[in-house]
Amino acid sequence: MIRSHEAGTLRREHAGQQVTLAGWVARRRDHGGVTFIDLRDASGVAQVVFREEDTAHDLRSEYCVKVTGEVRVRPAGNENPELPTGEVEVAATDIEVLSESAPLPFPIEGDVNVNEEVRLKYRYLDIRRESVARAVRIRSEASFVVHEVMREHGFVNVETPTLTRSTPEGARDFLVPVRLRPGHWYALPQSPQLFKQLLMVGGVERYYQLARCYRDEDFRADRQPEFTQIDIEMSFVTQEDVLRVAEDLVSRLWKDIAGYEIPRPIPHLTYAEAMARYGSDKPDLRFGLELTDMTEYFSGTSFRVFQAPYVGAVVMPGGASQTRKELDAWQDWARARGARGLAYVLVQQDGTLGGPVAKNLSDAEREGLAAEVGAAPGDAVFFAAGRPQESRELLGAARLEIGRRCGLIDESAWAFAWVVDAPVFEPLYDDKGEQIGWTPVHHPFTAPKPEFADDFQDRPGEALANAYDLVCNGYEIGGGSIRIHRAEMQQRVFDVLGMTKEEAESKFGWLLEAFKYGPPPHGGIAFGWDRIVMLLAGGDSIRDVITFPKAASGFDPLTSAPTTITAQQRAEAGVDVIPEEEEAGS
Amino acid sequence: MIRSHEAGTLRREHAGQQVTLAGWVARRRDHGGVTFIDLRDASGVAQVVFREEDTAHDLRSEYCVKVTGEVRVRPAGNENPELPTGEVEVAATDIEVLSESAPLPFPIEGDVNVNEEVRLKYRYLDIRRESVARAVRIRSEASFVVHEVMREHGFVNVETPTLTRSTPEGARDFLVPVRLRPGHWYALPQSPQLFKQLLMVGGVERYYQLARCYRDEDFRADRQPEFTQIDIEMSFVTQEDVLRVAEDLVSRLWKDIAGYEIPRPIPHLTYAEAMARYGSDKPDLRFGLELTDMTEYFSGTSFRVFQAPYVGAVVMPGGASQTRKELDAWQDWARARGARGLAYVLVQQDGTLGGPVAKNLSDAEREGLAAEVGAAPGDAVFFAAGRPQESRELLGAARLEIGRRCGLIDESAWAFAWVVDAPVFEPLYDDKGEQIGWTPVHHPFTAPKPEFADDFQDRPGEALANAYDLVCNGYEIGGGSIRIHRAEMQQRVFDVLGMTKEEAESKFGWLLEAFKYGPPPHGGIAFGWDRIVMLLAGGDSIRDVITFPKAASGFDPLTSAPTTITAQQRAEAGVDVIPEEEEAGS
Repeated sequence: MIRSHEAGTLRREHAGQQVTLAGWVARRRDHGGVTFIDLRDASGVAQVVFREEDTAHDLRSEYCVKVTGEVRVRPAGNENPELPTGEVEVAATDIEVLSESAPLPFPIEGDVNVNEEVRLKYRYLDIRRESVARAVRIRSEASFVVHEVMREHGFVNVETPTLTRSTPEGARDFLVPVRLRPGHWYALPQSPQLFKQLLMVGGVERYYQLARCYRDEDFRADRQPEFTQIDIEMSFVTQEDVLRVAEDLVSRLWKDIAGYEIPRPIPHLTYAEAMARYGSDKPDLRFGLELTDMTEYFSGTSFRVFQAPYVGAVVMPGGASQTRKELDAWQDWARARGARGLAYVLVQQDGTLGGPVAKNLSDAEREGLAAEVGAAPGDAVFFAAGRPQESRELLGAARLEIGRRCGLIDESAWAFAWVVDAPVFEPLYDDKGEQIGWTPVHHPFTAPKPEFADDFQDRPGEALANAYDLVCNGYEIGGGSIRIHRAEMQQRVFDVLGMTKEEAESKFGWLLEAFKYGPPPHGGIAFGWDRIVMLLAGGDSIRDVITFPKAASGFDPLTSAPTTITAQQRAEAGVDVIPEEEEAGS
Repeated sequence: MIRSHEAGTLRREHAGQQVTLAGWVARRRDHGGVTFIDLRDASGVAQVVFREEDTAHDLRSEYCVKVTGEVRVRPAGNENPELPTGEVEVAATDIEVLSESAPLPFPIEGDVNVNEEVRLKYRYLDIRRESVARAVRIRSEASFVVHEVMREHGFVNVETPTLTRSTPEGARDFLVPVRLRPGHWYALPQSPQLFKQLLMVGGVERYYQLARCYRDEDFRADRQPEFTQIDIEMSFVTQEDVLRVAEDLVSRLWKDIAGYEIPRPIPHLTYAEAMARYGSDKPDLRFGLELTDMTEYFSGTSFRVFQAPYVGAVVMPGGASQTRKELDAWQDWARARGARGLAYVLVQQDGTLGGPVAKNLSDAEREGLAAEVGAAPGDAVFFAAGRPQESRELLGAARLEIGRRCGLIDESAWAFAWVVDAPVFEPLYDDKGEQIGWTPVHHPFTAPKPEFADDFQDRPGEALANAYDLVCNGYEIGGGSIRIHRAEMQQRVFDVLGMTKEEAESKFGWLLEAFKYGPPPHGGIAFGWDRIVMLLAGGDSIRDVITFPKAASGFDPLTSAPTTITAQQRAEAGVDVIPEEEEAGS
């Protein structure tokens, strides 16, 4: 090493020692003939003092330098208790500029106030900043915990291919033309789902991987075209076994990285309960404010809007004092979510109800309403009416928004829950809202619970799955299921989904073939690694914990990828070759 | 778990216990009313006995079953000392077929004698086989050792992007069309080289990753389009620091996985020495048989073939007794490697020289030859003459072939060496063999050694690099260099390579931009992970240690990838869009 010590490690006991440091000029202060420099390296910061002004004369921010000098205790009164090295400084006798720095696009020290695209373009400067550097290190530490826990549990780390065949996971695949087989394409995996099931057929029994996955989705604020998941699969297990391993893993991560002991066992909510009480399959349980089902209450109503298969309500504490503008903004908020609006009543201080909906209600309906939903004078009550699923989701979103606006969420809290017993299928609607069939809630390999195993095909709307999602603070951080391992049951699922034998064969033929050879009962789970690290690092976005993330629409401001390609690359990759069997593709 | 015990864990002390096992029917033997089954799971094998024949009647190979019964000590004389569970058996009282198996394409137990494509098509059955299952587990264990060692050394595990921009590493990039930016393409990285250098600019100081890499190369026997490397980069280091970390890592891997203590420090060979003595930059040092430089010896020769810039020789012990056919086969062997042939003399038992070359030599040349090359009566001596590099490589290949044919290689030995001081540049020749310029031996960011730092541009053929390759048993298992971190030196390298500012800008612009902001001195190394695991697992091919490898030409017999794509996929991915700036591409 070209240095003898790391800057951040210097302490009082080093006083009198000659040291050589190497790092970056973080801050510089000149005081009449004496120059102070904060020298930063990966370990921290140390103060360097230059007696002769000329030595330090040319040093500017972020120059990379090597400094030799003597460690000495700082003069009394000059200590910096905020800094681990704050009791000492290095009196420099020699300095070498290892490389210079051009003027910075944004400061490294202190707060940075530039738009994210600039930060991403100069990401190598951004990761010199303390908060980003910390996130990079937390991610690394957390990944080690994963390897450690999974190994302790006897799991085998297997790398699965990423140049492979389309995996049917709902999103679009990224495609890769194959030069040696012109006109043929690999697909990048949306997950290692099929490979991990093959590993179970192969007798691996306990598999995990920190797997890079790819989904070509339309960009949303917090999505990335490539992301990482902790992928886990186990044989000869019940749902409880998978949940236990998952809890062990998550508990260790939160304990080792965030210093938080998750209460065990993590509570279970059924999917139906989560939807009914919180209007979400990933409820934020850091606050209460549950929905009230008002369908029964309004069963005889003459108010047309509430003559619906479902009517529900959520209370906004203190919401009656909102201005007309604020109440109108809620309507815009609801419409932006695809709803027609958000009906509301305002509970006045005298207990009477205000707002446009109130006058459409009968005296009796008005009378008992506040008590029924648990609203106090001064509160607002929001309603949704219509198909249960969508109405609940609207109220669930309103609940979250209320939680945020009213400061009901304890930002320092951690609230975990398993959401279990999701339906196997959900209705598939056409553009006009007519049900035209069924679609899997998870994926077509999810096993129905034993009580539905024999006849789920006769009542697909009722069948519940051996599926489970782990929810933390309103984020789904993991999800999985016990898989179907019998061809006969798998065929009945395909039948419900309206998938022909040919379609199933063309999509999953190689998995179905594998399942002919003694597949074990198995199940697994996958965790969103970027999301978990974001939570552990206290970030707001997964981009905070992805070292080189992409900006919106998949553009990388750092490398300017994606780029055009040359005619030669195009020709070599065989992009324009269209084989005769074109339509037989994946 | 649906079982109480793992089959391979049963011992004498379990006798009398009721257990439930789950696994696969490995072997079945019927003995008049009694049926014996070897039940295999991931932990091993246990013998299960069925007293009533009908219970076991339907069990065939590789059925997945659950068995309940009592553990009992085997009758005296029936123990199997080869099996850890060989003292006991399970007397089954209940059996449940979890899933059946179709007839197998090849047997799981014992040797398998089918071609590799069949094994890869049914890879999920192949990995039930003991040797493959073992390789999968060794890879997992080894990867944990990597994480452990690197963490002990303070390295940060960083995931770099794989949907990125073309990295110029010599091979072709795999390309990925971007639907959201039609006509634009990502490239899959050939290595994280540029990103790891950016991490150094970013102050990460110690980075590593088990990184998936992609190279679109013409298929050779032991290449895969995707492969994994241990990627390492460090700041503020000298070459010795990188070598020390690398040796620590490799030593731990060999100690923990192969039970072998690598003698430290690993010996150094210069590149020039390796080429001169072994005719290879990755010499197999498990045996001697060095090349002899005969240029001086033949400096006055009248034999036209030996009037060359370089003449060298290698001895084949006992080679004089080869048949004419065998000697001819050597000529074919040499021609298959692009040489014109392989001149040889045979040292007869009486010390005289035979073979067609002998008669072209002078008496004096014949006289001293055997002594000069160290050949004994009965040996053959092979020659190569021409340009030093190609001639040495031909002799180096002959040396290896001799080592194999003559059994000179101790297959149980491990021979490690660092090959250091490689040239920075090598001549670039046109089709006619005329030198038209220089090309980098490693990559254009490799730093010349200090003694060439100032004037390498004036003597590119002499300049040596701060580059190092780690060689094991004739394989290059790792390689790296100290990087250039000063723009001025980088520019001189580009100049020698004949790369214009525009070219450099378009290829590496974002790296060069980063280097304006105080880049630290840095260097690193990358290990071929598949190759290392192959050596640790005692395999012959990296396909033995890649769980789902591709066959020749990148085809995957398991999934049938790559496939054609549909017209809709094609249209959506924007494959056929050619932006106006076409030729400005990556």
